[in-house]
Amino acid sequence: MITKTVQDLHALGLAARKASREVARLSTEVKNQVLLNLAGLLRSDQAGVLAANQLDYQEAKVDGMDESMLDRLLLTSERLNGTADEVQRVSELPDPVGEVIETATMPNGLITTRRRVPLGVVGSIYESRPNVTVDIFGLCLKSGNACILRGGKETIRSNTALVTLLRKALLDAGVTEDAVQYLDNPDRALVDAMLRMNDYIDLLVPRGGAGLVKFVAENATMPAVTGGIGVCHTYVDRAANLQMAAEIVHNAKVRRPSICNALDTVLVHSDVAAEGLPLIAKGLTDSGVELHCDIRALSILGPDASGTAVPANEDDWGKEFLALIAAVKVVDSLDDALEHIETYGSGHSEAIITEDEAAATRFLDEVDAAAVYVNASTQFTDGGQFGLGAEVGISTQKFHARGPMGLKELTTYKWVIMGTGQVRQ
Amino acid sequence: MITKTVQDLHALGLAARKASREVARLSTEVKNQVLLNLAGLLRSDQAGVLAANQLDYQEAKVDGMDESMLDRLLLTSERLNGTADEVQRVSELPDPVGEVIETATMPNGLITTRRRVPLGVVGSIYESRPNVTVDIFGLCLKSGNACILRGGKETIRSNTALVTLLRKALLDAGVTEDAVQYLDNPDRALVDAMLRMNDYIDLLVPRGGAGLVKFVAENATMPAVTGGIGVCHTYVDRAANLQMAAEIVHNAKVRRPSICNALDTVLVHSDVAAEGLPLIAKGLTDSGVELHCDIRALSILGPDASGTAVPANEDDWGKEFLALIAAVKVVDSLDDALEHIETYGSGHSEAIITEDEAAATRFLDEVDAAAVYVNASTQFTDGGQFGLGAEVGISTQKFHARGPMGLKELTTYKWVIMGTGQVRQ
Repeated sequence: MITKTVQDLHALGLAARKASREVARLSTEVKNQVLLNLAGLLRSDQAGVLAANQLDYQEAKVDGMDESMLDRLLLTSERLNGTADEVQRVSELPDPVGEVIETATMPNGLITTRRRVPLGVVGSIYESRPNVTVDIFGLCLKSGNACILRGGKETIRSNTALVTLLRKALLDAGVTEDAVQYLDNPDRALVDAMLRMNDYIDLLVPRGGAGLVKFVAENATMPAVTGGIGVCHTYVDRAANLQMAAEIVHNAKVRRPSICNALDTVLVHSDVAAEGLPLIAKGLTDSGVELHCDIRALSILGPDASGTAVPANEDDWGKEFLALIAAVKVVDSLDDALEHIETYGSGHSEAIITEDEAAATRFLDEVDAAAVYVNASTQFTDGGQFGLGAEVGISTQKFHARGPMGLKELTTYKWVIMGTGQVRQ
Repeated sequence: MITKTVQDLHALGLAARKASREVARLSTEVKNQVLLNLAGLLRSDQAGVLAANQLDYQEAKVDGMDESMLDRLLLTSERLNGTADEVQRVSELPDPVGEVIETATMPNGLITTRRRVPLGVVGSIYESRPNVTVDIFGLCLKSGNACILRGGKETIRSNTALVTLLRKALLDAGVTEDAVQYLDNPDRALVDAMLRMNDYIDLLVPRGGAGLVKFVAENATMPAVTGGIGVCHTYVDRAANLQMAAEIVHNAKVRRPSICNALDTVLVHSDVAAEGLPLIAKGLTDSGVELHCDIRALSILGPDASGTAVPANEDDWGKEFLALIAAVKVVDSLDDALEHIETYGSGHSEAIITEDEAAATRFLDEVDAAAVYVNASTQFTDGGQFGLGAEVGISTQKFHARGPMGLKELTTYKWVIMGTGQVRQ
């Protein structure tokens, strides 16, 4: 069925809500069976998905989509196998549902337990990459949630073909196929309507660029994950191992410059700038990074014939570059670094490079961000790297979940109280 | 200073934000010293507060405030001593800040730790009772948060006098008095402005009637606690101990009918209605409870000369009475009870009375509410009764915190990552 109207969308919400009650009570075994069915289908039933994806791909190409976006849109047999592997890994993660978070016996004999339970229905609005359809479904199902998905309009055929596999995987395990709902109409008015469905959707997860995240944050009537945007600093302290600093800064910027945990600004203590900055800069510029330098950094790095070190302007501080560009600034103290990060950081990932334990402790205590690092690359901010197994996104808000959101972060809890006739005095 | 303009309010927000960084890093000892100072001042410096409260009280009386509201507004020496005792109890609760929620060493040697940290700045908008000023401050301070308070316009003098004590308690312990900010202007436009201060306020806690909570939920731009409204059911199963059922239902309704965890609707299984309903009804009507009965319950209870059992109308299901009224319905099965609660419950507190373990398990698993009970009164839903020590409110949302919100629920966490030069592959 093509979702045509807001009424259709409400029907879809109601179906998800109803399915969520069944999904919430599935055993771990049945949920894992769905995931293993899905992994199998992603490996064995690729033809329909690849054909649908080719139609999306060719149309996007004709419409002039740029190469990097086209590459994100493209599915191949190898990529589907990779997605299947990821689904299988989710089946191996511990089931968070039913976990006893804490329990106690009160003096009056009441046994109080905080028990972990699913949120209910998770909505997701995302762009371009069709594998997100499978990723979000897998994490929602394992955490006992139904989901309502709305992918990008460029990938509707691919997503619809993938959703067919998701529904088959559910049915083959005896689970209602309503556990996944797909909004298969690109009409923007339906997205607006989805953002108002707080009766049906318990959490909304936007996945995409800053524009999408901001739009969702401002317009959603239900809780939404705010995140995926990172203005990340690495501060090279006076007590830094400068060789280590150069390697970490290089990794934080160059490994994958287009992701939200990539370095944007390097702050270097003035005591070590003369020795450290050229070392750091060489690694970066050798990898094609353009350095936007404050006046002191520029005076140390000297005139640069290749044009890779240029004067920074005020806009460079606090900018998420998502490209091979880094801002560089010399600071006179840890306090100055902390103040700069307080002013310009986005609360995502921040690092200090130092051998001084007191400086490290102050940095970890005082920087207000989802992830704070000592002597490591900010590119580690990731559900897999933090041991969560997988993630639906990275939150930079402080409420409910901060940093990578894995299975546990897709749950809530209820208080379960066992009595033997207690009444309150 | 009287907060006159939105600019003043922003200055106050900025001061709170700045203070929050200091408060977040206070030692447990210093925070407890502030609380003990405050408890002392509430006992020794009552004259100013009582005089201010008398002005509020007399003015409200002249303005025609009803007796129960006047009583809520009134402060006495005894009540201030009681508030002091509560503040002292908060000083004895464990400090949640800095708690290691979990920690692990990754294969690459990175040590990842989720460390509990304060939210930052907590805002609260509340009505009538001036002791809320002290309660919220105490919980915010102990959890490492600064706070911005806006009490009811009827209690501005009382609250201002109390805030003077809060600030003195802070200063006497060497802590910035900006840790508490009070919006001392009744202008409603400033409340609207406060709801838009998401740059300064991390969490908003409304305390008051349904109108206030709804207004805040719909208009706040920052996360807000939704709660304090409870349509609470007690289901008397076919396998109930009927004497126990009568006692629990009586307590859940009569102990304090005006609070959110009070019983609103009794559901009785048809197999035990003939025997159980008269027993349950007698206890309630003897205490002056009016019963709004469905037709089957009415036929069992029979014609009632005193007029305490009357026919229910459709509005009675799903109504929060906050008074000596209960709706009564006969149901034919646990499934019917579950469906009724699903349709009419507000996700606050729901109870089953049964000796049948299978029925109890289904009820606990399938009812989607903040607190679910077996064989106990729903009036236990309370931070103190659940072992949290105290609460700022009761949440009926699923995000971040559910049920009573104590000190832990006023915190978030950050990921602290200790490396030795790790870069990501």
